[in-house]
Amino acid sequence: MENDIILLGHGSGGKLSHQLLDELIIPTLSQVAQSEQNDAAVLEGINSERIAFTTDSYVVDPIIFPGGNIGDLAINGTVNDLAMSGARPLAISVGLILEEGLKLTELQEILTAMKAAADKAQVKIVTGDTKVVPRGKGDKIFINTSGIGVFDHELTPAGNAAKPGDKVLINGSVGDHGMAVLASREGLDLQSEIATDSAALNVMVEKLLAEHGAAVHVLRDPTRGGVATTLKEIALQSGVDICLDERALPVNPAVASACAILGLDPLFVANEGKLLAVVDADVATAALATMRGREFGEQAVIIGEVTEVSAGRVMMRTAIGGLRASEMLAGEQLPRIC
Amino acid sequence: MENDIILLGHGSGGKLSHQLLDELIIPTLSQVAQSEQNDAAVLEGINSERIAFTTDSYVVDPIIFPGGNIGDLAINGTVNDLAMSGARPLAISVGLILEEGLKLTELQEILTAMKAAADKAQVKIVTGDTKVVPRGKGDKIFINTSGIGVFDHELTPAGNAAKPGDKVLINGSVGDHGMAVLASREGLDLQSEIATDSAALNVMVEKLLAEHGAAVHVLRDPTRGGVATTLKEIALQSGVDICLDERALPVNPAVASACAILGLDPLFVANEGKLLAVVDADVATAALATMRGREFGEQAVIIGEVTEVSAGRVMMRTAIGGLRASEMLAGEQLPRIC
Repeated sequence: MENDIILLGHGSGGKLSHQLLDELIIPTLSQVAQSEQNDAAVLEGINSERIAFTTDSYVVDPIIFPGGNIGDLAINGTVNDLAMSGARPLAISVGLILEEGLKLTELQEILTAMKAAADKAQVKIVTGDTKVVPRGKGDKIFINTSGIGVFDHELTPAGNAAKPGDKVLINGSVGDHGMAVLASREGLDLQSEIATDSAALNVMVEKLLAEHGAAVHVLRDPTRGGVATTLKEIALQSGVDICLDERALPVNPAVASACAILGLDPLFVANEGKLLAVVDADVATAALATMRGREFGEQAVIIGEVTEVSAGRVMMRTAIGGLRASEMLAGEQLPRIC
Repeated sequence: MENDIILLGHGSGGKLSHQLLDELIIPTLSQVAQSEQNDAAVLEGINSERIAFTTDSYVVDPIIFPGGNIGDLAINGTVNDLAMSGARPLAISVGLILEEGLKLTELQEILTAMKAAADKAQVKIVTGDTKVVPRGKGDKIFINTSGIGVFDHELTPAGNAAKPGDKVLINGSVGDHGMAVLASREGLDLQSEIATDSAALNVMVEKLLAEHGAAVHVLRDPTRGGVATTLKEIALQSGVDICLDERALPVNPAVASACAILGLDPLFVANEGKLLAVVDADVATAALATMRGREFGEQAVIIGEVTEVSAGRVMMRTAIGGLRASEMLAGEQLPRIC
């Protein structure tokens, strides 16, 4: 590692995050190979029953933003991580770290949003923990949600399962969450307000797996680091090239404008209600129809394909017909968007 | 609630913590009745297989202290919460919230301690998450550990299962962890250094349940709020009176001296390697022998008994023969000891 202290960029989800994980955290704690790293771990319980297990901490600033707050974000994010492993979310834990001085009305609003999000995703909040830190030693509220899921089938979608010929689908526009938080935090005066896309995608995933089964090779939610970083992870884990069609990528006009003004690429901006599905070409059209028939999937499109076995490149076919390589987010683009 | 903001005391584990939980957090999030609140939730997975699930965030200051650091503390604490439900710890998640500027050497030391603690407790770290917050918005490192356990038996030790006649056992001295952290944080110059008692107690619990089965009614680890607060919780949940013998309570001399100087009662000081077992009187002596035969149990003693069905009082028989009521910790005695 080049530096001897933690930098903000270590939390970006991009290159520095991967370096911290690959060089320090994973070698020390768990030795999980990169090709086996997914949004949730899958364990064997008793009688070989599979259990999915995941954790995420939320440190978003501000804690309340257009379309949601840190509470529903924390529930939806963990529900989605379980869903991407193919599991049915069963139970969620909530760990609160409160800063002395947090208003109880804000805490109430956040907890109420958590309960509503859990009810909507049909998952139960079953255990929790609350800690308080002195003023100036935290930032209002941090939330950890961990989740357990169970499997109603034998399928194993995973980041290392993309195959040449597969199509890449996304259920809607990219970059909404990150730009909503950024605009809210920086007080940007945008003509039309951008809202988070935060949503639980477990029902959509259940439908995809029920209807298309083993033809669904990879499911991932492109959060920190955005679509570009998540696709690069999939390309590396599967040892394939992925080619994206820039013209096919849905971006809300307000998000596109804000990104243009700020010099950001929406492909690297976080989403919290999007999934990338890499599916067998034979079912791509049908899978697209499945997604479009569900809430949060009306705008689903095919954005690219897996081209060949390789060292894991992501290529972008640009609007003018050229090809350029897309890499992971380097450094920190938008701190604390989740 | 009397105040409209979060106070440090809301994190004490005592009365204010219970008020925040009972009046805001639990009614909003989960509606778990007080009598059903335990260190871990027990869920039904597929095929009615039971799964234990728990979460804890660690915000201890300082992050490294005599006998341990925030890393092994976080592993042992979550292993113990699973063990107290009677489950065998299977897997742990790690959520790191790092403050920009944290030294990588300190992070390495903490992660190494986590791995060693997990190996010793025979539990795997299987999934994780890392977030970074700007300088001044955190305090070096906060760690959330969540855990999953499975059951190799049909037993259900729980806080609401204490019965009149039962004996109360503890596996050793009280107050070591809280005083070790306090002395380290405040730079107290004690003649003999006090070290944390942080330890994983799952093997001791497995032995207790294997040898004494359903005669083990309650298992709890007296962490924040100490032995007094935990016993009060058990008394309230079970609807019984518990009577403690002050002379039987083991307190290390250095801890007793430090508590005397600072005006603290070791009964309210946190432990991180202690368990309270409420067992049928018929097996009390044998259970004591089981504990004494294990690492971390050599100093086990019987410290009291369950006297009668009541509204949940804890009484202390003092050294001079009197009786006084013991309540939960009120307000904040020692902030950020775990």
